[in-house]
Amino acid sequence: MPPARAALSAALAAAIAAASAAGPAPPTAVWPQPRQAASGSAAVPVAPGPDFFSLGGHGESPLLEAAFERYAALTFPHAGGATPVSRAGAVVGLVLSVWVLGEAHPQVSTDESYNLSVPSAGGVAVASSRTVFGALRALETFSQLVRFDFDRGAYVVDGAPWVIQDRPRFPHRGLMIDSARHFLSLPSIRQIIDTLPYAKLNVLHWHMVDQQSFPFQSKSSPKLWEGSYSAVERYTQADVESVVEYARLRGVRVMVEFDVPGHAASWCIGYPEICPAADCQMPLNVASEATFNLIEGLISEVAGTGSSKSHDASGLFPDSFVHLGGDEVNTSCWTKTPSVASWLQERNLTADEGYAYFAKRVASMVIQRGHRPVQWSEVYDHFKASLPKETIVHIWKGVTNVTEVVANGYDVLINVATGDKPWYLDYLNIKWDAVYRNDPCHGIPTDELCARVLGGHGEMWGETVDGSDLQSTVWPRLAAIAEKLWSGRSQTEDVAEVLPRIRAFRCLLLQRGVAAAPVDNAQARAAPAGPGSCFEQGARAPGSARPVGERAILL
Amino acid sequence: MPPARAALSAALAAAIAAASAAGPAPPTAVWPQPRQAASGSAAVPVAPGPDFFSLGGHGESPLLEAAFERYAALTFPHAGGATPVSRAGAVVGLVLSVWVLGEAHPQVSTDESYNLSVPSAGGVAVASSRTVFGALRALETFSQLVRFDFDRGAYVVDGAPWVIQDRPRFPHRGLMIDSARHFLSLPSIRQIIDTLPYAKLNVLHWHMVDQQSFPFQSKSSPKLWEGSYSAVERYTQADVESVVEYARLRGVRVMVEFDVPGHAASWCIGYPEICPAADCQMPLNVASEATFNLIEGLISEVAGTGSSKSHDASGLFPDSFVHLGGDEVNTSCWTKTPSVASWLQERNLTADEGYAYFAKRVASMVIQRGHRPVQWSEVYDHFKASLPKETIVHIWKGVTNVTEVVANGYDVLINVATGDKPWYLDYLNIKWDAVYRNDPCHGIPTDELCARVLGGHGEMWGETVDGSDLQSTVWPRLAAIAEKLWSGRSQTEDVAEVLPRIRAFRCLLLQRGVAAAPVDNAQARAAPAGPGSCFEQGARAPGSARPVGERAILL
Repeated sequence: MPPARAALSAALAAAIAAASAAGPAPPTAVWPQPRQAASGSAAVPVAPGPDFFSLGGHGESPLLEAAFERYAALTFPHAGGATPVSRAGAVVGLVLSVWVLGEAHPQVSTDESYNLSVPSAGGVAVASSRTVFGALRALETFSQLVRFDFDRGAYVVDGAPWVIQDRPRFPHRGLMIDSARHFLSLPSIRQIIDTLPYAKLNVLHWHMVDQQSFPFQSKSSPKLWEGSYSAVERYTQADVESVVEYARLRGVRVMVEFDVPGHAASWCIGYPEICPAADCQMPLNVASEATFNLIEGLISEVAGTGSSKSHDASGLFPDSFVHLGGDEVNTSCWTKTPSVASWLQERNLTADEGYAYFAKRVASMVIQRGHRPVQWSEVYDHFKASLPKETIVHIWKGVTNVTEVVANGYDVLINVATGDKPWYLDYLNIKWDAVYRNDPCHGIPTDELCARVLGGHGEMWGETVDGSDLQSTVWPRLAAIAEKLWSGRSQTEDVAEVLPRIRAFRCLLLQRGVAAAPVDNAQARAAPAGPGSCFEQGARAPGSARPVGERAILL
Repeated sequence: MPPARAALSAALAAAIAAASAAGPAPPTAVWPQPRQAASGSAAVPVAPGPDFFSLGGHGESPLLEAAFERYAALTFPHAGGATPVSRAGAVVGLVLSVWVLGEAHPQVSTDESYNLSVPSAGGVAVASSRTVFGALRALETFSQLVRFDFDRGAYVVDGAPWVIQDRPRFPHRGLMIDSARHFLSLPSIRQIIDTLPYAKLNVLHWHMVDQQSFPFQSKSSPKLWEGSYSAVERYTQADVESVVEYARLRGVRVMVEFDVPGHAASWCIGYPEICPAADCQMPLNVASEATFNLIEGLISEVAGTGSSKSHDASGLFPDSFVHLGGDEVNTSCWTKTPSVASWLQERNLTADEGYAYFAKRVASMVIQRGHRPVQWSEVYDHFKASLPKETIVHIWKGVTNVTEVVANGYDVLINVATGDKPWYLDYLNIKWDAVYRNDPCHGIPTDELCARVLGGHGEMWGETVDGSDLQSTVWPRLAAIAEKLWSGRSQTEDVAEVLPRIRAFRCLLLQRGVAAAPVDNAQARAAPAGPGSCFEQGARAPGSARPVGERAILL
């Protein structure tokens, strides 16, 4: 770390230590909670201007230039109407200092830490980070510190001075979307990507195809998208590329999933030869080389040709993780289909060993291309430590012994640690507080083993979700997941403390045009029960006292 | 009309007459149905390019320049990925010819008619209109004629050549939103405005305040917004101005409503003196000049000071219509409040006459400022032809004799003609077909009388509607309203014919990122019942035949 930055960091640490000496700090208005924050008691005005956000030092960052435009709109939504604030004594800008201005696609290893300070006497707020992606997180935090004071017609940061030192608890924090049970249009996907950085999420897990439909354009197997719902519910490769780029600009990785050999009936429409029989469409035909040739062609499109062993830029998805599904494989119709049964018999394989053969063979295609395969719980449950160590196990079943998985040296993604599928967002009866009680390291005995937990997702299975209700089913419960994955474990144990904050964050989402459903309803995405403030979400008698959940009172 | 345009118009009419001779044309893929359309059978390719949309002749139009950018994205959503089409034989542009390039705020009198032709042999498509707002409608129609052929990787217009001559049946076609039962954020309002032109709607009726909350900033009575739900659920005047401008650019008028003297308890929080008593907050105090002084100040902010008798640019809402509410006035607590009771007695007024006095006095404030007051049914039901003739009666009660209203010389807006509040979008059990059966001229005996029906709205009362479900409660039922208000009466009588078209229009809305709920569900805004195509909205077995509702088959 260069000396100047080290000094800044030391100053920050000292400020935070001084603040901490006064006792535990109350939660800030920022969602998710920053790891360390020290604040004061001044309300410092903020004077927006055309170059409010800027990059300090040398170099340029198109990614950050675009982000400055977005965050100007998010931070100063009433700019047209704000009473001009005297610049004396006001915060007149946020200067970002970024160590390395590289803008390549973020990966799980990308450093998102940042420091942010907002002075109480005005002047310039300063953020520093190692990467542009850390800078994006700093912009989000700053935007949440600024509020518009309607009575004064001016922007203000309460609780100044602020000194924040922040970094995520887990590197992989995401949302899974399912474009197979319902097609999701490009604008719907862009809109949901827009929302992820509001809660500092950084992964879109794109469950691209499933047994119901295959919307993806494969150039190596161009008949695959004959399995789409209709001729217009499809994605071209250029569409997909544009989504990946859109996400990159927001610091969001896109991890694609092609779920094999189960969940794949839609593949048979274009290529019946990769399916065992008309009455046995899933699992895909383990006995045919055509199956593996087709999958290898698809993986080459997705992950590159593997000619270099690094992430091949020629793949559609530059992310190092490629999800291969592997869940809910029922091999019974393999053994009932004579050609498959005899293939297994010739090789002296049980059906389950055929499943292992399939899962490992497709995983090796990904590994050969310098990527890492992600597979659902069952693949580990069946084949344990025989899986290649590059494999990431995506835990969705309570029966999986996660401690054993990580002790065996596998990295994991987790959506269930306590309770019944707490991060399955299609379970509408799971409220935000049950979501929030799910700690990804629950039951894992040591920090060392917990270090193999990379993070997790809200899993938005799409059986009853399309563009009409995607946002309202995802939000605000995804916010609970986001805070569990970003903030420190000890910061996220007191559920009672969270209620006014998550209500306020939902109000922020509404203010930003996100269709976030009420926090308090028993069923997710239920409509508001009656007239009222977003902070209360219930009826309020006219003339009664103001709601107590307003953002300012959190400080 | 200049000779060139007259010749074009004659040619169009001849083409349409020739097509009509072959029998009634099938419905087009355009929603709402154009009034007159002739089509052929060619699939003509379309070659997008940076200047695809352009304005012919002299003059400039910032409004249209901005629209070209929007419609390029809407018409060519896969532009990045489209296989380059040879320009020979392709439609290479849409040239708009606009008679008068004025960009002042649209009014109810604004001409939205347009002609559009798309050649089958390629070249340039041409649209002509009298106003820029007619040009916006032509852009929408053109955008709906273009589809992306995923198999060819290219855009195409089916059914070419097209000759369309189009104009709305009613000049006032809108959506009412309610920012009092729940605060609606600026992005939520902008998003819903975005969607209105997709169905050629042209009015946002903004039910700004109500008994539950008063989010609006009044500069003449700055304590009024103390009746807001919270310190942040408020609109500054600059916010409102920005919404009005945003709407203007999309050809959408904004008609504001301040509902008096009922539905106004929230006004009492800032100004208790305009309310009869602590236990009688509504109707507002008819006995106090403070009440009328406050309302007059508010109307001056909204509608201008009236120093010139035209629409005063100094008002926040340049629209000539100002809605004053007037519904559901229960005068019983006036007579129970001694000061009000004695005021009425001194003037020898019944309570109902006090209500008349109130309604007419506030209407006259609007009329004096060169605007026209809009008031709900009851105001007519109580006071009949004694109302000033500038009054527009907003019919919402089945008991109102609409024929009598129009025969008495009043213009009307209608949301109920048949059935129980068919255009009340908060009635979730009213499906799109019941919405569609409501003809605004139902029961009005002559076309002459029907000419006093200016149009109507979908009424989105907000008791259970906020930013989380606004779009999904409004759409797709608002589409049914939009077609009733735009297309010819004889074009909108066969409800059975409409089903595949409204399903396809809902798919288009989803493709554009609008959270339009399924068409077929019994309850509005219900989630999709199971996996499936947007064209079917139900489960489809893998491998079964394609849905029949795809856009192309409509031609």
